[in-house]
Amino acid sequence: MTDRKRRLGVVLYPVFELLDVFGPLEMFGILSDRVEIVVTAERPGPVTSAQGPDVLAHHGLAECPPLDLLLVPGGFGTRTEYQNPALLKFLRQRGPESEVTMSVCSGSALLAAAGLLDGRRATTNKMFFNEIAEQATNVDWVREARWVEDGRYVTSSGVSAGIDMALAVIAKLYGQETSEQLALATEYEWHRDAAWDPFARAHGLV
Amino acid sequence: MTDRKRRLGVVLYPVFELLDVFGPLEMFGILSDRVEIVVTAERPGPVTSAQGPDVLAHHGLAECPPLDLLLVPGGFGTRTEYQNPALLKFLRQRGPESEVTMSVCSGSALLAAAGLLDGRRATTNKMFFNEIAEQATNVDWVREARWVEDGRYVTSSGVSAGIDMALAVIAKLYGQETSEQLALATEYEWHRDAAWDPFARAHGLV
Repeated sequence: MTDRKRRLGVVLYPVFELLDVFGPLEMFGILSDRVEIVVTAERPGPVTSAQGPDVLAHHGLAECPPLDLLLVPGGFGTRTEYQNPALLKFLRQRGPESEVTMSVCSGSALLAAAGLLDGRRATTNKMFFNEIAEQATNVDWVREARWVEDGRYVTSSGVSAGIDMALAVIAKLYGQETSEQLALATEYEWHRDAAWDPFARAHGLV
Repeated sequence: MTDRKRRLGVVLYPVFELLDVFGPLEMFGILSDRVEIVVTAERPGPVTSAQGPDVLAHHGLAECPPLDLLLVPGGFGTRTEYQNPALLKFLRQRGPESEVTMSVCSGSALLAAAGLLDGRRATTNKMFFNEIAEQATNVDWVREARWVEDGRYVTSSGVSAGIDMALAVIAKLYGQETSEQLALATEYEWHRDAAWDPFARAHGLV
């Protein structure tokens, strides 16, 4: 635990999934006295989500300030971004430097494409699990997990799982009571158990 | 149920709560073949959320196209917006015209300030319930409810409750199976019961 404010960077790209980004940012963002959020993308300016709304990136990837925490969302955009050299270069630089590098949903496919998950345990969204796992065979993909922590890398299942992962990371950084208060304030039924994953079965993975 | 695409407008203002907006928009936005999302605010351009990120408003309130569905988020910004004549005028015009007018969290304080909830049952977030209820005494405030439907007005409890409300509204407009599929795709544990509200007790309201 540090007294210094941590800087959390979220990486946007076209056709990112809204809730992958704003579930975790809701939770980290309430801690505005302890966490500063920066929004980054290949170029500064508006980035269009999968659902339509446009979010402003404050920095281009090359100008992004140093980060303590990194958040990589998923979305259909990952299907082109996993071959984007600028994005992969950024992840290769920043992923191993940050205190915690997080992904939500198919965001783990980007971390995998950057080679950051080689030999590590990780998870991803359950609807496209097999497609993603077949694309990155150096990763030990976990079929049934709300989120998986392996060293600095914390990868979550699909979309809403990012909220549970964020609260788990916050509990580790700032204490369990902080996350309990966040869940209460946002009237969120937090799944505290990383092994809770009814969706693995619902999607036929176990 | 209509074959025509419905247009959903979300009203942003400074210091809106991120998840109040993007929880519901995640769900409605996946239905892009049936729902078009427009983002509106007093003036077009970036609007800064309570948590920091900036979201682009496509239209000023005066230029907002006709809406079938209206979504009003909450956030600390409601404490100044409930006296904003431009916003209240917009809500008074558009609220009674739309097929469904929704609020999340303290967004119901804005609907109440516009007089739209007079004599109606409604709910709001549980942490600031008493403050909001005392401010709008013409409303029949429901202390224990995940969301409340009264005619075209559907008001939800705090922050994450908006996701459950959105799925309930989608079930009504597009069928229960559509919402079940959305919950499965987003790996979201949907609370299907509007009476489910452990947070009323946790916040000492019942």
